[in-house]
Amino acid sequence: MMVLLLALKITFLGTSASIPTKKRGQVSIAIQRERDLLLFDAGEGVQRAIIESKIGFKRSMKIFISHLHGDHCLGLLGLLQTMAMMDRTDSLQIYGPNGIKKFISVNMEALNFKLTFNLDINEIGEGIIYEGLDYKIISCYASHSRKSLSYVLKENERPGIFYPEKALELGIPKGELWSRIQNGETIVIKNKTIEPEKILGPARKGIKIGISGDTRPTNKLVKFFKDCNVLIFDSTFSDELQDKAIETLHSTAREAAKLAKEASVEQLILNHISTRYAKPDILLKEALEAHSNVKVAEDYMIVNISNID
Amino acid sequence: MMVLLLALKITFLGTSASIPTKKRGQVSIAIQRERDLLLFDAGEGVQRAIIESKIGFKRSMKIFISHLHGDHCLGLLGLLQTMAMMDRTDSLQIYGPNGIKKFISVNMEALNFKLTFNLDINEIGEGIIYEGLDYKIISCYASHSRKSLSYVLKENERPGIFYPEKALELGIPKGELWSRIQNGETIVIKNKTIEPEKILGPARKGIKIGISGDTRPTNKLVKFFKDCNVLIFDSTFSDELQDKAIETLHSTAREAAKLAKEASVEQLILNHISTRYAKPDILLKEALEAHSNVKVAEDYMIVNISNID
Repeated sequence: MMVLLLALKITFLGTSASIPTKKRGQVSIAIQRERDLLLFDAGEGVQRAIIESKIGFKRSMKIFISHLHGDHCLGLLGLLQTMAMMDRTDSLQIYGPNGIKKFISVNMEALNFKLTFNLDINEIGEGIIYEGLDYKIISCYASHSRKSLSYVLKENERPGIFYPEKALELGIPKGELWSRIQNGETIVIKNKTIEPEKILGPARKGIKIGISGDTRPTNKLVKFFKDCNVLIFDSTFSDELQDKAIETLHSTAREAAKLAKEASVEQLILNHISTRYAKPDILLKEALEAHSNVKVAEDYMIVNISNID
Repeated sequence: MMVLLLALKITFLGTSASIPTKKRGQVSIAIQRERDLLLFDAGEGVQRAIIESKIGFKRSMKIFISHLHGDHCLGLLGLLQTMAMMDRTDSLQIYGPNGIKKFISVNMEALNFKLTFNLDINEIGEGIIYEGLDYKIISCYASHSRKSLSYVLKENERPGIFYPEKALELGIPKGELWSRIQNGETIVIKNKTIEPEKILGPARKGIKIGISGDTRPTNKLVKFFKDCNVLIFDSTFSDELQDKAIETLHSTAREAAKLAKEASVEQLILNHISTRYAKPDILLKEALEAHSNVKVAEDYMIVNISNID
């Protein structure tokens, strides 16, 4: 039996908080899922990071902006311009909070650039904002100084593993019927109805990935990120700067880890790292005291997630 | 006698044409002259290049934008924002073509950021746009698809070398009078008037640096860049793409070199290199056929110029 490898690849294109450093560019996260590229935030320099990581400018792409602070969206303009210069023809969807249409249109006017493709800008609130064939993107309000959004990529549940020996036992010949059962369909053979559950293992949960954007931890986000396989969360500060985290509406690494623990998140990735942590060991240490599976994001770090058993 | 070292340091912060590459960021050139930093263009990523080259965000700084194409000015926004986040207090001057005020103000509104310093934006045409104590910045219209400016930094002529033995011969005691003569003043001693020329060598020309921005070569620019010590010129294409240079209103490396030769420029630096020239050998070769002293700009290349004999 051929197993279709359904892997998700997360590439960190920029991981700094507000100001870039030698090692960290401004925030952007790319998720590649089959042919789709989903870009979460687009800080200054994102087009160069896309070149560096060989992701390409012409593919099927959607961009999700968390909020309209420069370090999260200024790279959008150069990215659009470069796509146009490269004669992209596929339409591009952008999702973000109110104001994003104006941000793009005033700049296209001021910089006098035209696009070679259809740009579809969606000003969104909370809810399912995109529904594909087998995954959704959902948004939820975060708690930050500007109207900010957190995002979740949630794959649909998929039928369980197919057991050929069970199919043969039930007298179902190899061929088209097998595919239909693999897709979770009920079939009828020799006037007998066969439910797919008789041949398939238990249904498999889709992967869930959460991306916080800039935010304080909130109970709302605990629910929103419930059971994420991977959660990428604002971890701007260490414990020592807890006050500053509250004042600037960011989170500490420990707060991110506590939220991840409470939400039963499998793996937490600390992101949006303040320039003061040239070596982020203290962030990792403090987060590991609240959650056992934590990584610190680095530019060009790749995380592959697969739900093949 | 103490000689004050008056050196100019040019740092190439970005050297690509339109689209960045792994090795080349979008256009920006920093000239450091004593305590002043003069930035010519500010493509996306300039703030990171400033960090990389350790130039610093708080110093006395003026920014000159050639034209409002994204690859020449989009880095301005993140730069301003970072300066504000670093609590810059010194005022900052920006010079550029009509529309630059609006470009900055619509973005400050859309991205909701405030500055911690006074920003003085000057929409300029041709002429002397800044006159300091001992140098000027002069602008001249270039020939490109948007209203574009070329710039020249021209130091004032300085008095010649001071010869102490001549001063003593003429009975001028060491002290304050020597300083006044070194500054080119005529002095009176024992009712005798002494012209500085009697004690100083011939006046020394100030350094002249030219920066073309995006442009076709024109006769006007030959005059404008006359006798530059260093000319940084649009060299987007090689001979083979001469038609494309004309169509897109850029220059070939050979055209840049011909113009530099005609303007009696000492050293030509090819800049704004198309992404197609991963190795720019062909550009250098073609330029060297028209001018003997040519370099190709690379990111973080430094050129020091001194007019001390």
